[in-house]
Amino acid sequence: MTLTAPELDELVAADAAQHRVLTGDRPTGPLHLGHYFGTLANRVRLQRAGVDVFVLVADYQVLTDRDVAERLEERVFGLVADYLAAGIDPATATIFTHTAVPALNQLLLPFLSLVSVSELGRNPTVKDEIQHSRQDAVSGLMFTYPVHQAADILFCKADLVPVGRDQAPHLEITRTVARRFNERYGPVFPLPETLLSEAPLLLGTDGQKMSKSRGNAISLTTPPDEVARLVKRAKTDADRHIAYAPETRPEVSNLVLLAALAQGRRPEDVAAEIGDGGAAQLKRVVTESVNEFLRPIRARRAEFAGDPAQLKAVLAAGNARANEIADATLAEVKAAMGMDYMR
Amino acid sequence: MTLTAPELDELVAADAAQHRVLTGDRPTGPLHLGHYFGTLANRVRLQRAGVDVFVLVADYQVLTDRDVAERLEERVFGLVADYLAAGIDPATATIFTHTAVPALNQLLLPFLSLVSVSELGRNPTVKDEIQHSRQDAVSGLMFTYPVHQAADILFCKADLVPVGRDQAPHLEITRTVARRFNERYGPVFPLPETLLSEAPLLLGTDGQKMSKSRGNAISLTTPPDEVARLVKRAKTDADRHIAYAPETRPEVSNLVLLAALAQGRRPEDVAAEIGDGGAAQLKRVVTESVNEFLRPIRARRAEFAGDPAQLKAVLAAGNARANEIADATLAEVKAAMGMDYMR
Repeated sequence: MTLTAPELDELVAADAAQHRVLTGDRPTGPLHLGHYFGTLANRVRLQRAGVDVFVLVADYQVLTDRDVAERLEERVFGLVADYLAAGIDPATATIFTHTAVPALNQLLLPFLSLVSVSELGRNPTVKDEIQHSRQDAVSGLMFTYPVHQAADILFCKADLVPVGRDQAPHLEITRTVARRFNERYGPVFPLPETLLSEAPLLLGTDGQKMSKSRGNAISLTTPPDEVARLVKRAKTDADRHIAYAPETRPEVSNLVLLAALAQGRRPEDVAAEIGDGGAAQLKRVVTESVNEFLRPIRARRAEFAGDPAQLKAVLAAGNARANEIADATLAEVKAAMGMDYMR
Repeated sequence: MTLTAPELDELVAADAAQHRVLTGDRPTGPLHLGHYFGTLANRVRLQRAGVDVFVLVADYQVLTDRDVAERLEERVFGLVADYLAAGIDPATATIFTHTAVPALNQLLLPFLSLVSVSELGRNPTVKDEIQHSRQDAVSGLMFTYPVHQAADILFCKADLVPVGRDQAPHLEITRTVARRFNERYGPVFPLPETLLSEAPLLLGTDGQKMSKSRGNAISLTTPPDEVARLVKRAKTDADRHIAYAPETRPEVSNLVLLAALAQGRRPEDVAAEIGDGGAAQLKRVVTESVNEFLRPIRARRAEFAGDPAQLKAVLAAGNARANEIADATLAEVKAAMGMDYMR
C-alpha cells in the first residue's frame, strides 16, 4: 500500500501499539537530507504516533558491495548519533546492530532453506546492485542479503516495513519466507506489509541521485558554510522565473523542493514566493532554509557525539532488547521445526 | 594428503594434543557399516591417539535436500547413540548440534562476504547434489552449505578434516575463506588440511552405493536376522571359487571386503580361507562376521538408547563446550574486522 503522511497517521492512530516497524541503514557514512526526508522523518512520525519502531544498524551488510568495512566503529556510532539527533527516541525505539544479535543471524539458516537459488538470482535489486558493484564478482553475502533482511523483519515480527520503490522486491522475499515457513511448520510469522513512502525524491545538488560518494549530498552534519558552498555550485537554468516543474526544470525544482521540505511547506508556495528573483535568490532561500532546518539537529547531534558513553549505552540497551526478542523467536522457530531437542 | 591408518597413527603420535579434527553427519537416519568403516572408525582411532575430536550433528543441513526434516529428535539422539556405541568418548570428544551454537552460525555472515556466487556455483559437490536433489529447485541453504561448513571447521580452528574424495572440494572453500579472512583482517584462522581416508569403498549388499534409502545398508542397529536376510539377498556370481578381485568381480569382492573389515583382516586372506566354498559359504562367513562385529556395538547402543537423559546430557555438555569456543572465535573475528564496538 502507498500512504501519504496523513493516511499513515490515520492508519496508526487507531491502534498504534498494535504495529511494529522495522527500518535500518548500513553504516557507510553520515545520513543526508535524502535519508532524512525519505525515511528518517517517517520513522520519527511513526514513533511519535506510538508505533514500536526498530532501527537496525546493518553492519555486516556493509560488506555486500565492498571487501572491507572501513572506519566502522566511527560510522556505527555516527549513525546512532544521527538517529538520536533526528528524533528517534531510545526510550521507545530499539536501535541495534546485526553483529550483536546472534539469534537473528541464525534465522538465516532455516530461511535459506525456504527460497531457491533462482528466486535469489531473479531479485531485481540484487541484479541492479550486481551491475553497480565495485566488486568484480558478486559475493555470497550480497546474493543472500534479501534472506538476511527477511530475518531482520521477521525476528521481531514487524508488520509494517517502510521501503523505497526499489526495495519493494526484497519484501517479496520476506513475505515468501514467512508464507512458506507458516505452510511447512505452522503459523509463526505475520506477513508484513510494505509501507511505500510518497515523499518526493530529493536529488543531490547536482541534480543526480544524492550520495555522499558523488559529493552532492548535504548530510545532517554538514556545516553552514559547506551547505552554502554546495548550494552555490548547484546547477540551475537561464529562466529567471522560479517555478516548481520537476519534469521540465528538474534542477531548479529540486532546489525548490529542498527549501520546501526544510521549511515544511509546499514547493509550489516556495516557488511562488521567489517568483522572478532568479537562481541567486533561490539559492539564498535554500541555504537559509536548510541551515535553519539543520540548526537544532546539528546542535543535538554535537551533544550526542560528544557523549560516546551515552551512544554506547543506547546501543547496548537496543541490542539487549533485540536479543531478548530474537531468542524468543528462535526458540519458537526451533519448536515449530521440531528442533527443540534440548527443551 | 592421503594417509593409511598406520601413517595417520604416526602423524598424530608425536603431537596428538596439537591436533583438532572436525567431523560430522546429517541426522537423516541410523549410521551404517559404510559410515563405520569409512569414517567412524577413523574418528575413534584419532580420539584414542589423543586428538581433540569434534563431532557435529548437522541438523539444519538436513534441509539442504528436502523440504522438512522428519523425526528429527529421534534421529539426532539416535546419531548420538550411534557415536557412543561406536566408541566416541564424550569425556574427550565434543558432540554438538548446529541449532545450539548461534555464534558458529553467525560466522556464516562474514564468511559469505569472502566467496563469490560463481565460486559457490562451481563447487562440484553442489553441482552433483543439485542433479540428484529431490527438490525441483536448489535452495539457498544447499547453495551456501560449503560456507556453513567453513564455519563448522573454522569456529573450532580444526587443523585436520577427514573427508571422502567427493567432499574434497568443500574443504577448498574452507581454505579459501580462511586465507581471504587472514589476508583482509590479519591472521586468525589456520588453513586446515584434508585427511583423505584410504579405507576401501564398501558398497551395499546389492553392489550399489550403501544407502538406507536403497534398502542395501546394514546399520549399527540392524538385528542379526535382518543382517542374515540382507546378505542372503546379496548378488554374487557363478564362479564357485571366491577371490578378492574388485575390478572383475565387484559383488563377490564387496562381500569379501565386508567380512574382512568386520574381522579386521585382509580381504585376500578371507577370500583364500573360503576358497572353493562358493557363494553360500561366503554369505555364511559374512553374516557371522558382521553379527559378531556388531554384537558389542549393538549392546552398547541399546544401553545408551535406553537412557535418554544420558544422551541429552552428552549433547548438552558438547553444546556448552562448542558455544564457549564459538563465542571466543566470534569475538576474535569481530575484533579483527573492527566490529567489536561494544568491548
